[in-house]
Amino acid sequence: MAVAAKTDHDASGSSPDALEALRLLLGDDLAKVNALIVERMHSPVPLIPQLAGHIVAAGGKRLRPMLTLAAARLCGYEGEHHLGLAACVEFIHTATLLHDDVVDESHLRRGIPTANAVWSNQASVLVGDFLFSRAFQLMVSARSLEILRILANASATIAEGEIHQLTTANQPQTTEDSYMEVIRGKTAALFAAATRIGAVVAERPAAEADALDTYGLHLGLAFQLVDDVLDYSARQAVLGKTVGDDFREGKVTLPVILAFQRGDDSERRFWERTITNLDQTDGDLDQAIGLMQRHGALDETIERARQHARRACQALDAFPASPMRKCLLDIVDFCVDRAY
Amino acid sequence: MAVAAKTDHDASGSSPDALEALRLLLGDDLAKVNALIVERMHSPVPLIPQLAGHIVAAGGKRLRPMLTLAAARLCGYEGEHHLGLAACVEFIHTATLLHDDVVDESHLRRGIPTANAVWSNQASVLVGDFLFSRAFQLMVSARSLEILRILANASATIAEGEIHQLTTANQPQTTEDSYMEVIRGKTAALFAAATRIGAVVAERPAAEADALDTYGLHLGLAFQLVDDVLDYSARQAVLGKTVGDDFREGKVTLPVILAFQRGDDSERRFWERTITNLDQTDGDLDQAIGLMQRHGALDETIERARQHARRACQALDAFPASPMRKCLLDIVDFCVDRAY
Repeated sequence: MAVAAKTDHDASGSSPDALEALRLLLGDDLAKVNALIVERMHSPVPLIPQLAGHIVAAGGKRLRPMLTLAAARLCGYEGEHHLGLAACVEFIHTATLLHDDVVDESHLRRGIPTANAVWSNQASVLVGDFLFSRAFQLMVSARSLEILRILANASATIAEGEIHQLTTANQPQTTEDSYMEVIRGKTAALFAAATRIGAVVAERPAAEADALDTYGLHLGLAFQLVDDVLDYSARQAVLGKTVGDDFREGKVTLPVILAFQRGDDSERRFWERTITNLDQTDGDLDQAIGLMQRHGALDETIERARQHARRACQALDAFPASPMRKCLLDIVDFCVDRAY
Repeated sequence: MAVAAKTDHDASGSSPDALEALRLLLGDDLAKVNALIVERMHSPVPLIPQLAGHIVAAGGKRLRPMLTLAAARLCGYEGEHHLGLAACVEFIHTATLLHDDVVDESHLRRGIPTANAVWSNQASVLVGDFLFSRAFQLMVSARSLEILRILANASATIAEGEIHQLTTANQPQTTEDSYMEVIRGKTAALFAAATRIGAVVAERPAAEADALDTYGLHLGLAFQLVDDVLDYSARQAVLGKTVGDDFREGKVTLPVILAFQRGDDSERRFWERTITNLDQTDGDLDQAIGLMQRHGALDETIERARQHARRACQALDAFPASPMRKCLLDIVDFCVDRAY
């Protein structure tokens, strides 16, 4: 199954080392971005670096800022503005995570207590606002109105996606289109902006900016589809995450939508009880996973992710072969392969 | 006492009509801004215009956007960019209110249920984020990096002030300096930015931008000082607000700080019980007001507001006499006179 997951461009396969390979190829850039992130978290109000430091340190793969750095380098950019923009992208992402954890009432993220659990919802809301403002300050430093436009639009689209998601919660009858709109907003819009601005900062033609936007958009869609599968997968435990968070929150993702659509009356009553009414007991998560497997809902979600992965890779045909292009192609496989 | 409150420039007095006079002088500008606000609240996600419309309609005096419009006109601006900037300032303010109500767990604002009470904290956090993003989109439309810099800085300063306030909650031993830093951030920074950008959009010299910044800053400080007095004043009821919200939340404002500083040991134990431990019973609010009156804490807070009001008015000496300057001076009195 892992082999079938590969996108067409690279039959020899990729691995989590794709991230490490990209890090190496970026040289000092990522270290500079990390230093900038720490520097720009500073504030005379001590709670700000404390709380922001907690989530930034807990901190994930830096996938989005690496995409900005990589896109700029792919476009031959040799200046320094991409560093601030990469930090800016990470700040927008971090602000979103802080607010997400408040909205979802999450207590753990990547196995450690969330900022709202350690401090408070109040502190997380306000420090999220601060980081979001810092992101805009960083953008202004790049002195490009076009980049400001792209990132302001992405921010509005992210918020729209999150709110849309809130309105689909507990509704397993949500349409696939509605779900795709949600993940396009909450996840893919920032990926697309992160890669597009790499071309814009390098002052490349619109065709290259559009190609990188397409790459980021479909990579982001694939990434989120896989994430939504992982929430119902044993693989999740290997990644240090909790299985079943979406289920317990009544979050409606594609696996739920497909299983609901394909279920009989008694199955639909199961989804209505557990997702709509959040009336859950021991064994319900296992039953949910069983129903998803019976109807091929997880496999089909992965197949959709693969389709978007292919479109992401195709978009890079706009660029000549190079080690950086190879890395960006491998990153696509890395994002999809997490599912296995 | 009302006469003593007047600032020096205008012995003949002002009234709430100062706002109405400014509205008249602004002609169609405010109506255009209101239309723009409604237009830019639009989203295909229905919850966004519903929730945003609730708070925008409930909506306050539009004092901050009016200040931007007035400052631009005072500087002789004849273009249209000030309209989008005024809407932007109102969006930043509205986003802040939505998040404030979540942070303060408020259920009423200006006598009507808050958005978080009607919808949910989650929706208020996310729609606040959306409005904040919209604000940045509006800023980008003005195509001025300098204005973007001013408003991005103001946004970060607001968040810093709010977080600083959160860290002083329940601590009546907070210093006056710390309190002034809080209100400079959470309130005065946006007033200062709102008026400064009026000069910048009109492309006036730095001296005029600085003068308008000083005007806005001190007006904002005076405004917040009066607000903090009103929370312990019977006048509050006349304005349709609830008395004692700050007290019940354990929010530490200048009247509390002064009464605590000047209190004896038994009084300090009262403040520690009610503000630090939030252990409050019937009659405590009356006793708090009694202690504030005994130590002149409310009068002194108003006197500080008057001092800032005078500095706001003096800053306008940089401009020749005009009906708009007169209006901006009267607005200062209006803000201070609310205390009576």
